[in-house]
Amino acid sequence: MTDDAARVFVPGHVTGLFSVHRDDDPARTGSRGVGLTLTDGVTVEVAPADESVVFVDDDPVAVESATRVLDAMDVSLEVRARTDVPLGAGFGVSGAIALGTAYAANAVVDAGCSANDLVRLAHVAEVEAGSGLGDVVAQARGGAPIRLEPGAPPHGRLDGIPDTSRVEYVTFGELSTVDVITGGTDRLSEAGEAGLEAVRERPTLDAFMTASRQFARDADLLTDDVASVVDEVASAGGTAAMAMLGRTVFALGTGLSDAGYDPGVCRIHDAGVTIR
Amino acid sequence: MTDDAARVFVPGHVTGLFSVHRDDDPARTGSRGVGLTLTDGVTVEVAPADESVVFVDDDPVAVESATRVLDAMDVSLEVRARTDVPLGAGFGVSGAIALGTAYAANAVVDAGCSANDLVRLAHVAEVEAGSGLGDVVAQARGGAPIRLEPGAPPHGRLDGIPDTSRVEYVTFGELSTVDVITGGTDRLSEAGEAGLEAVRERPTLDAFMTASRQFARDADLLTDDVASVVDEVASAGGTAAMAMLGRTVFALGTGLSDAGYDPGVCRIHDAGVTIR
Repeated sequence: MTDDAARVFVPGHVTGLFSVHRDDDPARTGSRGVGLTLTDGVTVEVAPADESVVFVDDDPVAVESATRVLDAMDVSLEVRARTDVPLGAGFGVSGAIALGTAYAANAVVDAGCSANDLVRLAHVAEVEAGSGLGDVVAQARGGAPIRLEPGAPPHGRLDGIPDTSRVEYVTFGELSTVDVITGGTDRLSEAGEAGLEAVRERPTLDAFMTASRQFARDADLLTDDVASVVDEVASAGGTAAMAMLGRTVFALGTGLSDAGYDPGVCRIHDAGVTIR
Repeated sequence: MTDDAARVFVPGHVTGLFSVHRDDDPARTGSRGVGLTLTDGVTVEVAPADESVVFVDDDPVAVESATRVLDAMDVSLEVRARTDVPLGAGFGVSGAIALGTAYAANAVVDAGCSANDLVRLAHVAEVEAGSGLGDVVAQARGGAPIRLEPGAPPHGRLDGIPDTSRVEYVTFGELSTVDVITGGTDRLSEAGEAGLEAVRERPTLDAFMTASRQFARDADLLTDDVASVVDEVASAGGTAAMAMLGRTVFALGTGLSDAGYDPGVCRIHDAGVTIR
């Protein structure tokens, strides 16, 4: 059935560790790694329009991943995204807008895509826009996704940590994803592969947080502000790590509150992308 | 972290069409097909016990799929399941209890399993108990799962219909799963493959309902009571189908209410198995 408008929620996604895998085929390009999807995320609504335009929290914003999704589906739509989490701070907002746009557009124009088709469209758009490598497939799954093999369906392969938790976060702003992703990634990927192995051996949230802290150090991505907050949470008896790639610290339970911060509070999201 | 007790929700699952695929390896045995996961389902709690015992709605019940999960994990636990939907009527209750037991046991005994490990354990237990072929993998995913390839991770492969709906159902009791599954399944599987192809070509809820009605007729599974309700819903302008394998009719939207029934009412479940 075709609807006049559609509303879709996509969870935020913080990656704790990852490795980069490039391929000539963008559907096979992606990252391996581990992260948490969050009940704080992005709500996307679309409506018919003569010319495509994307609004984020009422401001027109050039979100290339979303525009590429609309172009690939050959549709013109007004996209309105509302986000609980900041852009550019490691929460996968561009991936969420791309995936939400694909799902909402499919409902409005009756494009006849399956779930895997829509995830692939959004993943390819993200990769080609250079704005992300693993958020879309994680946001399609929900929970605490382990990205075993890179890429979109049917290439990528996922597992998950079978647990849930309250999650807190504080953010100090952007870290240039482009600089990190387009620079040399050998050292980063080596650290990411080691971290993934550690989580696969012991797929628990505690093991994930430990491996993520180690990854941030080994990959040399820890900024001073993030490093000191992670240490403060540890001193207060909690467990925190850095959201890749942003100047953002996330903690399980009440880790940041206990260390005296006034964090954003949410939970691990049970579901992936959800039609509202 | 290890907990003293754990509570897990597993959605109900109605299959509209399926084909049977057997293999020497139970992890590769399963069904292909299409169904809906439901917000009405089964809540499973486990607690340490000297000897394993399974209660369903406070009555001790021999649920072989769950006992096999506990045996495979080498643990003794008291399992308490509460179900919103009846046993043996095509809602995947035995699969739900098996999957919920696996997730809850992993939390309580700190078994160190990943999500895929737990889905595989529960799927194998279901197949070996002879109580189901495709419910567990569908219940692990949530939404409206399309089972592209049979079996548990890493063998099985899933897609989904990217839509949601209110779902109504009425049930007239049991249909022997064992009789159907162990009898000749060539005709059934041929009809199931044709239905799967139709849904893959047009992955919408409407196409799924149409293909499911066709499957029930072609596979010669339609009982008289179910057939007449499906017809009444159609006469009232709605769309209904038979839940495989049970004497249960499910409809989208208000299909059964509009036809004068007093149905169970729920929705398609956004998430798969969920830790509460």
